[in-house]
Amino acid sequence: MSLSASTLPLLLLPIAVGLIGIVYVVVTALNILAQDAGNETMQRISGAIREGAQAFLAQQYRVLIVFAAAVAIVIAIFIRWQTAVCFIVGAFTSALAGFIGMNIATRANARTTAAAMKSLDAGLRVAFRSGSVMGMSVVSIGLLGLWLLFLAFGMGQLAVDALAGFSFGASSIALFARVGGGIYTKAADVGADLVGKVEAGIPEDDPRNPAVVADNVGDNVGDVAGMGADLYESYVGSIVAASAVAMVGAARGELSPTAVLLPFAIAAVGILAALIGTFLVRTRENATQADLLRTLRTAIWTASILIVPAIAILIALDGTIGWPIFFAVLLGLVAGLLIAYFTEFFTSYTERPTQGIALASRTGVATLIIEGLAVGMRSTLPPVVIIVVAVVGAYLLGFNNNVGGRSGGADSGLYAVALAAVGMLSTLGITLATDAYGPVADNAGGIAEMSHLPKEVRARTDALDSLGNTTAATGKGFAVGSAVLTALGLIAAYAQTSGLQAAELTLLDPRLLGALLIGAMLPFLFSAITMTAVGRAAMQIVEEVRRQFREIPGLKEGAPGARADYARCVAISTRSALREMVLPGVLAVAMPLVVGGVLGPAALAGLLVGATGSGFVLAVMMANAGGAWDNAKKYIEAGELGGKGSENHKAAVVGDTVGDPFKDTSGPSLNILIKLMSVVSLVFAPLFVQIGGLIR
Amino acid sequence: MSLSASTLPLLLLPIAVGLIGIVYVVVTALNILAQDAGNETMQRISGAIREGAQAFLAQQYRVLIVFAAAVAIVIAIFIRWQTAVCFIVGAFTSALAGFIGMNIATRANARTTAAAMKSLDAGLRVAFRSGSVMGMSVVSIGLLGLWLLFLAFGMGQLAVDALAGFSFGASSIALFARVGGGIYTKAADVGADLVGKVEAGIPEDDPRNPAVVADNVGDNVGDVAGMGADLYESYVGSIVAASAVAMVGAARGELSPTAVLLPFAIAAVGILAALIGTFLVRTRENATQADLLRTLRTAIWTASILIVPAIAILIALDGTIGWPIFFAVLLGLVAGLLIAYFTEFFTSYTERPTQGIALASRTGVATLIIEGLAVGMRSTLPPVVIIVVAVVGAYLLGFNNNVGGRSGGADSGLYAVALAAVGMLSTLGITLATDAYGPVADNAGGIAEMSHLPKEVRARTDALDSLGNTTAATGKGFAVGSAVLTALGLIAAYAQTSGLQAAELTLLDPRLLGALLIGAMLPFLFSAITMTAVGRAAMQIVEEVRRQFREIPGLKEGAPGARADYARCVAISTRSALREMVLPGVLAVAMPLVVGGVLGPAALAGLLVGATGSGFVLAVMMANAGGAWDNAKKYIEAGELGGKGSENHKAAVVGDTVGDPFKDTSGPSLNILIKLMSVVSLVFAPLFVQIGGLIR
Repeated sequence: MSLSASTLPLLLLPIAVGLIGIVYVVVTALNILAQDAGNETMQRISGAIREGAQAFLAQQYRVLIVFAAAVAIVIAIFIRWQTAVCFIVGAFTSALAGFIGMNIATRANARTTAAAMKSLDAGLRVAFRSGSVMGMSVVSIGLLGLWLLFLAFGMGQLAVDALAGFSFGASSIALFARVGGGIYTKAADVGADLVGKVEAGIPEDDPRNPAVVADNVGDNVGDVAGMGADLYESYVGSIVAASAVAMVGAARGELSPTAVLLPFAIAAVGILAALIGTFLVRTRENATQADLLRTLRTAIWTASILIVPAIAILIALDGTIGWPIFFAVLLGLVAGLLIAYFTEFFTSYTERPTQGIALASRTGVATLIIEGLAVGMRSTLPPVVIIVVAVVGAYLLGFNNNVGGRSGGADSGLYAVALAAVGMLSTLGITLATDAYGPVADNAGGIAEMSHLPKEVRARTDALDSLGNTTAATGKGFAVGSAVLTALGLIAAYAQTSGLQAAELTLLDPRLLGALLIGAMLPFLFSAITMTAVGRAAMQIVEEVRRQFREIPGLKEGAPGARADYARCVAISTRSALREMVLPGVLAVAMPLVVGGVLGPAALAGLLVGATGSGFVLAVMMANAGGAWDNAKKYIEAGELGGKGSENHKAAVVGDTVGDPFKDTSGPSLNILIKLMSVVSLVFAPLFVQIGGLIR
Repeated sequence: MSLSASTLPLLLLPIAVGLIGIVYVVVTALNILAQDAGNETMQRISGAIREGAQAFLAQQYRVLIVFAAAVAIVIAIFIRWQTAVCFIVGAFTSALAGFIGMNIATRANARTTAAAMKSLDAGLRVAFRSGSVMGMSVVSIGLLGLWLLFLAFGMGQLAVDALAGFSFGASSIALFARVGGGIYTKAADVGADLVGKVEAGIPEDDPRNPAVVADNVGDNVGDVAGMGADLYESYVGSIVAASAVAMVGAARGELSPTAVLLPFAIAAVGILAALIGTFLVRTRENATQADLLRTLRTAIWTASILIVPAIAILIALDGTIGWPIFFAVLLGLVAGLLIAYFTEFFTSYTERPTQGIALASRTGVATLIIEGLAVGMRSTLPPVVIIVVAVVGAYLLGFNNNVGGRSGGADSGLYAVALAAVGMLSTLGITLATDAYGPVADNAGGIAEMSHLPKEVRARTDALDSLGNTTAATGKGFAVGSAVLTALGLIAAYAQTSGLQAAELTLLDPRLLGALLIGAMLPFLFSAITMTAVGRAAMQIVEEVRRQFREIPGLKEGAPGARADYARCVAISTRSALREMVLPGVLAVAMPLVVGGVLGPAALAGLLVGATGSGFVLAVMMANAGGAWDNAKKYIEAGELGGKGSENHKAAVVGDTVGDPFKDTSGPSLNILIKLMSVVSLVFAPLFVQIGGLIR
């Protein structure tokens, strides 16, 4: 690698920033642990949740070790051992980030409740800081890990393979965490609701419900560990895609060698910007819902604005990259913010789409379901257009980027697209913090309820929880958008490293076209499998809760001394989730191998594009329909249309239940599907090129 | 055109067969009209339905004339006047076929009831023959029209443009008939059910319900005229695509000139095979449901088997086409039968998927909805794989077809794919007859109910109706499959006539990729629009029915002399459907024009492929989920899981209502979307090539 002396700061920057991030994580985690953990009851409940979550993680990791070992052996045989090692490192670092984030989240829940006994601001700070531990863990561990690999392997095909392997490792963890966690969380949630709320008529989070702890565990394993692993995958994948494209381009003389460093540098300044934003989160007593939302938004916007001049400085210092690239990065950044905005528009109950769903409850459940599906489908328009504008815009900017004697071209165009993904994810440290904050606040509310804390405490935790619901919806939109952009970046890297020519990747090739149709079908199949899995797992919870109500005397009536067996429900959820995630997992890994091997590397690109297109749209549809149903219910619960207990409310509850697996299992799992298939293709590209397809 | 003398029979065949078909239509129509039309009440009800249906058609045609005139002018200016003329002829012939079919259907309904007063067989024959009038009208008018155009224009670009124009005309009618009819039928159905069954507690088809006539009209305009126009479009489109590809290929010397004639000849022998099958439909008294289904299946299978040697003879007589092409046609034919088989598997209540949905009712509406969506999503796997195998298989057969000194190649491959679509649709005369039979039987049942006929008559019409539900589900699967294959044929013709090279149609072009993503989103947007339209139109019916119950004294209680104002509900449905079909119509026509003009002809191909992929999957999902929900309800009504009136049944009714717009409006409308966008692209291809895209 021939780099000028001026790039030395660039070489040190990621290490310095990664270490700063890790210091933040350690200091913040210690600070959270130093907080009051609440009374004995609160600590007991929190402990049960933590134990359940850790038990799930431990068993998941056991499955994962077998899976990872098998995959690593396959990689070592067919590709090269270095890739296999990087695969393991990628998987390990993702697991590490998830473990840290979830561990702190399950310790912060009771501490948030305890802080909320003092003030709203205290509660918000504990919950948000715990979220920021997850956010910062993901970005600093991800950046440091990738950067050390890069320093170790340098540039060239070996480095591309190594980075792809790391990314694949991260994807594998994401698969299990997101799919398994998604099944876990909704099986417990739906199961608890079906028997608890509907059959037994006891309120949510009531300690009599044997599934209540499993439900709270689910928030952590699904929404903290699952979401974290999903975005770790995107974060890592986007940087890998951009640097891989840059390496190939630089080797061909199409791009400046320093183009390889830029994605890392952008990620590094993004971490700094996110850190600054994080310190801005605070509120005052009597803050309204809008105030709370504003403080989080201010934090995100500050980070997003701060990063712009920072990137400009990087481009200016380098001098060989060219300003069009700066605007491509900006396109990605703005696209992320816009997608979040439209997600909120379609799912917030202050807006017309969600209110329309609530209104449809007047003519019954059926019309409410239809309207929810219609809103979900309609809501796919803005994100798709935004991503298309970002992709086409970035490509054209890169393509026409005449700088340093180079004249742009296709490599430069693909590089710009991949960098747009890096731009979108640059401030992940803070956006992920606002996501991971939600489940902590949700748990805090549950603990307040189960510990029979005073009304005003519950009111504060409710306010925090409600804010979490909004950030959860926008977070999902951001997760989908970044997954798609990352997948496109990875597909570009795949096409480039496998040396496929434009004429080979043609729609006129029926194998490619056929694979594209199969790809378009896969997200539907994947969603069907995950939805059915949730249903099956929920039924087991239902049966267990029914059994406990039947066999434990006085439990249902709340007799003192009658104790629910929480651990049993936790164990059932864990077992089901782990069993149910095998089929979708195998599908996601095997499909690219089968198509790439049988129909050839060009057809495989068709599969990826088809899956990314239909997966993107279906994921947005499911996430937004689910979010909108949820908030339509909350709208009615806020006193509209007859309020809680009315026929309208009952209809809205059904919509919310339908939406649960949509927004928390199947929809988010599609992010993993499209990224994982892309990265599997990138890793095994050399193999497919060698075979060339069995059907010619 | 240089054809040998041996092709003379081929030239005469389509004319002879077309005329035979028309004779069949006339004789059968007269035969139906000669049947007993029942008592005065039955005739009055039938008359009201006929009037309503004709009023809808008349108003629809008024809108259409404006639309068609505008489009014709645009075509005349930008393409050529001959294409504009053919466009009008295509639209007119489609409207003619639809008018004949629906006119007979609305006259056959009371006659079916009257015949059912004699025997089940008599009822079946009247209903099925009326369906065969629709089936034979579509295929004979379609074939004759295309063939006369071909004789008039010969071969070359002018002929391609002319045929494409004809196909576009057929598509325009299909758009209005399928989308408008689909909105009409479900608005009336859902509206009638919501107030009638749910609020007022009166049974289905009760004459007190003011929307009952509109509901029966809807069956005719949606399921007869709409389905007929949809398949007319597929039928015409598949022949046009195959002959257009053949013309371009023949001009380049890649294909035999007689390759142009083959699609017409296959269509002609298919009509004969269908005719023979038609005469086999009969049954005996005390026939079970299975017996009835068997007689229809025997008819379809006989036609499908008869056509195989007929096609073989055509290929053998010609001698320049090559046997691989024979197998490509066969692939299409078998694919159609297989898709119908799997559709039945997923939607029949004797099979596990639908029974699983019914079982999910035990835990309430939400799980029933989730399970139905999951079944719909899962059911997309077989049709997609079947179509992909057919497309890839046909292409490879054509590509490697070495015959008459020619060595196959890409043109031959595309020709084989287009011919597979022709093969699938070759026996449309009889498959469409079984589809169009359904609404007649449904109407006959309604008339029996409204005329208070004896129980055994109603039992017979119920048996006929129930059979119609099964054929409706398989018919929808066939309609989607043939639409996709036709669309792929049209896309091939588009790519070929616009002279796009493989390297231009590359996934590496971000404009093409972006357009593909937009295309993948369009079916979701289109479905959202049509679903919302149904909801809005249904609400107007609900309000009108409520008003009549309120303002017409004694109506709800069934006092003698209290008469519902049926015409008003018919008028409201008509108005809403016509208004609501404008937006989706404009979208379907405008999108290819915008993308082709702005992003260029290669990107447009991406749009088409993206829309076809995701539209295919979504259409199958919606049609099958809707069909399965419908039959899950029927399964419970047949006495399972507590039977009619149980909580499980109530949940199943909700599922059925959600499924209504899925299977009868939004799902089928997607067939039109993908075909129409493809044919618009084919027609305007010369324009897009000239412009070349504004963004480069």
